[in-house]
Amino acid sequence: MHPLIQHIQKITGSREIDEENVLSFFDSRHFRKKDLLQEQGVLCNAYFFVVKGCLRLFYTDENGIEQTLQLALENWWMTDLDAFRSGRRTMYAIQALEDTEVLVLTAKNYNLLPEEIPLTEKYFRLVYERAYSATLHRVRMISRMPKNEFYELFESKYPEFIQRIPQKILASFLGFTPEYLSELRKKRVENKEV
Amino acid sequence: MHPLIQHIQKITGSREIDEENVLSFFDSRHFRKKDLLQEQGVLCNAYFFVVKGCLRLFYTDENGIEQTLQLALENWWMTDLDAFRSGRRTMYAIQALEDTEVLVLTAKNYNLLPEEIPLTEKYFRLVYERAYSATLHRVRMISRMPKNEFYELFESKYPEFIQRIPQKILASFLGFTPEYLSELRKKRVENKEV
Repeated sequence: MHPLIQHIQKITGSREIDEENVLSFFDSRHFRKKDLLQEQGVLCNAYFFVVKGCLRLFYTDENGIEQTLQLALENWWMTDLDAFRSGRRTMYAIQALEDTEVLVLTAKNYNLLPEEIPLTEKYFRLVYERAYSATLHRVRMISRMPKNEFYELFESKYPEFIQRIPQKILASFLGFTPEYLSELRKKRVENKEV
Repeated sequence: MHPLIQHIQKITGSREIDEENVLSFFDSRHFRKKDLLQEQGVLCNAYFFVVKGCLRLFYTDENGIEQTLQLALENWWMTDLDAFRSGRRTMYAIQALEDTEVLVLTAKNYNLLPEEIPLTEKYFRLVYERAYSATLHRVRMISRMPKNEFYELFESKYPEFIQRIPQKILASFLGFTPEYLSELRKKRVENKEV
């Protein structure tokens, strides 16, 4: 069974789903490590479901520094939701951090899908419910916690990110300098060894 | 027509909605300014839709300082979504900042509602889609923008918050000290007068 179908079953708790019909709304694409799935400034017409691999969403700021705002591993969705919903140009680029396989949903099919397959309406409601709830938690962590506590919590909650994401990109995602993250990791390893 | 029904029609674009049936899932409650709708540490079983007035979600930190994480005006939803979904105790209190009228949806009815009235599944999917997208924008503002730019953008996007929310609570929500916010507002008024 395709990972997307497994994910829909897991999230909705329903097994009544026509695999072939659902997958007919998507295109499958492969990207190599470092490929751009979407460039900054283009019309945003694609919503990506990560089948295998890892993506990041980022922008290049006025100083030429790449700022990573989101990461996505297997079973995560990624797009510039604001631009995707409105059909506007996106302020963000999306890049593969590993060799990555995705399903692509166009804006047109995103609107058709819940009409044709009502279970996907429930699925997206629950996916957003989780994502919204997690992002609020992220706001609290970013804005109220000492950086070392924030990192500890992040490490315990998302160990895969720590292992798979290059240090420089992870630092940007966390809002740290690469030097600060490197120092923090060194200290944590030393503490564990004691 | 009840404001909730108007909101469902506006968000979903559908007029086919049985007002009486939808409202039968909710209780109407009134709170006075400063009343707590929910205390920190209790089981979270209520989702609030603001009909009239204003709410905030906050916690008291280890130094006894109240930290405001969310605000809700008319047509906004508010709960500790994580605790509400899981039936756990909430880490947050919810307080009325003005005399406030809300509709209350229990967790049980939140689960029943989309089964009985499928249009509300679409409604909540779209409400979360917007909220998630706005919260990502907030993450970017908090973590990447100079504070004065962040405040300018916030002021232009949410003028009602600036007018209706007490300065101390607004400062906490923005992650500023009250003194810094006060200075920022004074400067902006002076600049406008020039």
